[in-house]
Amino acid sequence: MTLGKEIDGKAFAAGLRGRIADIVPGFVAQKGRKPGLAVVLVGEDPASSVYVRSKGKATVEVGMESLEFKRPAMISQEELIELVEELNADDSVDGILVQLPLPKHLDDAAVIATIDPAKDVDGFHVVNAGKLAVGDPTALVPCTPLGCLMLLKDELGDLSGKEAVVIGRSNIVGKPMAQLLLGESCTVTIAHSRTHDIASVVHRADIVVAAVGRPEMVKGSWIKPGATVIDVGINRVPAEEEGKTKIVGDVATAEAINHVAAITPVPGGVGPMTIAVLLRNTLVAAHVRAGLPVPEGL
Amino acid sequence: MTLGKEIDGKAFAAGLRGRIADIVPGFVAQKGRKPGLAVVLVGEDPASSVYVRSKGKATVEVGMESLEFKRPAMISQEELIELVEELNADDSVDGILVQLPLPKHLDDAAVIATIDPAKDVDGFHVVNAGKLAVGDPTALVPCTPLGCLMLLKDELGDLSGKEAVVIGRSNIVGKPMAQLLLGESCTVTIAHSRTHDIASVVHRADIVVAAVGRPEMVKGSWIKPGATVIDVGINRVPAEEEGKTKIVGDVATAEAINHVAAITPVPGGVGPMTIAVLLRNTLVAAHVRAGLPVPEGL
Repeated sequence: MTLGKEIDGKAFAAGLRGRIADIVPGFVAQKGRKPGLAVVLVGEDPASSVYVRSKGKATVEVGMESLEFKRPAMISQEELIELVEELNADDSVDGILVQLPLPKHLDDAAVIATIDPAKDVDGFHVVNAGKLAVGDPTALVPCTPLGCLMLLKDELGDLSGKEAVVIGRSNIVGKPMAQLLLGESCTVTIAHSRTHDIASVVHRADIVVAAVGRPEMVKGSWIKPGATVIDVGINRVPAEEEGKTKIVGDVATAEAINHVAAITPVPGGVGPMTIAVLLRNTLVAAHVRAGLPVPEGL
Repeated sequence: MTLGKEIDGKAFAAGLRGRIADIVPGFVAQKGRKPGLAVVLVGEDPASSVYVRSKGKATVEVGMESLEFKRPAMISQEELIELVEELNADDSVDGILVQLPLPKHLDDAAVIATIDPAKDVDGFHVVNAGKLAVGDPTALVPCTPLGCLMLLKDELGDLSGKEAVVIGRSNIVGKPMAQLLLGESCTVTIAHSRTHDIASVVHRADIVVAAVGRPEMVKGSWIKPGATVIDVGINRVPAEEEGKTKIVGDVATAEAINHVAAITPVPGGVGPMTIAVLLRNTLVAAHVRAGLPVPEGL
């Protein structure tokens, strides 16, 4: 029995960041400024603070401008929307990311709806969801599913005609993932909590994308021998050692690894892609906004 | 062998038009004006002229205002966009429909993008595609797939957990159909010209929606016994009698009728729904624009 390949998302992400870093100087030379990513952080949530710091660091490392806007948790909806409008109007800002979730008194959807779709590097604005749905190439696509697609194309090449099953139907992963795979001419099925006999539905797939947020829900026996598996889950569970925790995905990888062609590990698979794709989206947005062609290799 | 039921789209559409006609007087009483549908027809294409006339007649029959704007085929893009902008600004217009296709020198997409999404009763604007994708209940949904969903819910009741296969991935039927079925918690597969072994993919389905525009492409043997079939195709083919033509769907109905639970005939199934749903969308748009709750039964 041969072991399936572990897809190295960390290495792919590093390569993507390298290509971005190679392209940035050309943009700077043409426009006289760096591409700029503005990240808005409301409140003191420790996890959100860590994410925002990582994004800022990665942005600077590829030669782009990182702008952080920290606001107190008690900021009003009006003040936050005013800040987003200022960033919309600021020509040095190419990408705007509002770190979610926002404190409970704020309306995530209303804030996201305020972002200029051309600067919506998270791809959460309804205009970008619509552009993705109709196949408009100017869509800014949510980072996680776009990162998954990049890994799949790198691993498999042409995806046309392959049977893909996406498990999960969230607006930020499952649904855009299905749209992207359809755009690559896969036969796409979306499975979810109401799906009957999900094991046999998943068993049809050449490509499985699991995005449910439930630890090791997808059993090894569900997966067809030779399939390629993308595990989007990041679930913290108790570790063997008392009092410790560990991170596992949505797929029972130990059960699947012997018969899959390839699978993304957790951690180290999809996770590292997200920030790299955010930088990619920012660089694409900068080019599109400047009327420049989108460079190859992004 | 029992014959499958023929789903009577004509009767359902008549019922829907009746419910619309019952609701219109209440709107008129509250707002002091009729809901208004503006249809723009460019050029003299005979088929388009017939469609526009039918839409106008149906609009008046349910008590709404029909406004027709006929423009010569040589109208410029700027003039056409100006007309749409005037209709956007006109408060008595609740729905705007630009009859497609436009003459070749005009840009369909740019014209559609000009329509106020709140008046886009065809549901073709990217904002409505995005709202449908993210599950926003204020989405205006393309008439044909919404009509198909109405027939399915009328026939089957709760669709949750059913296996649905949509054949075809156009922006006006296949893709929104898949979104609607996903919204009803079906397990949804989208099949298309690049799908391998499409017969076996279709054979999984409890619900088949065929929207490919190829006469009788879907064979009876592809369809699982007991499935419910919606045939969106309207294809003109040579009739048995020399020199005559007839209309057939995308499904080989004669092969399927003995083992399906129910199927929409062609003509008389999906076709009659389209205009009724257009009137429904116009009435919904009128209520939403007026800040009134959307009435039950639409």
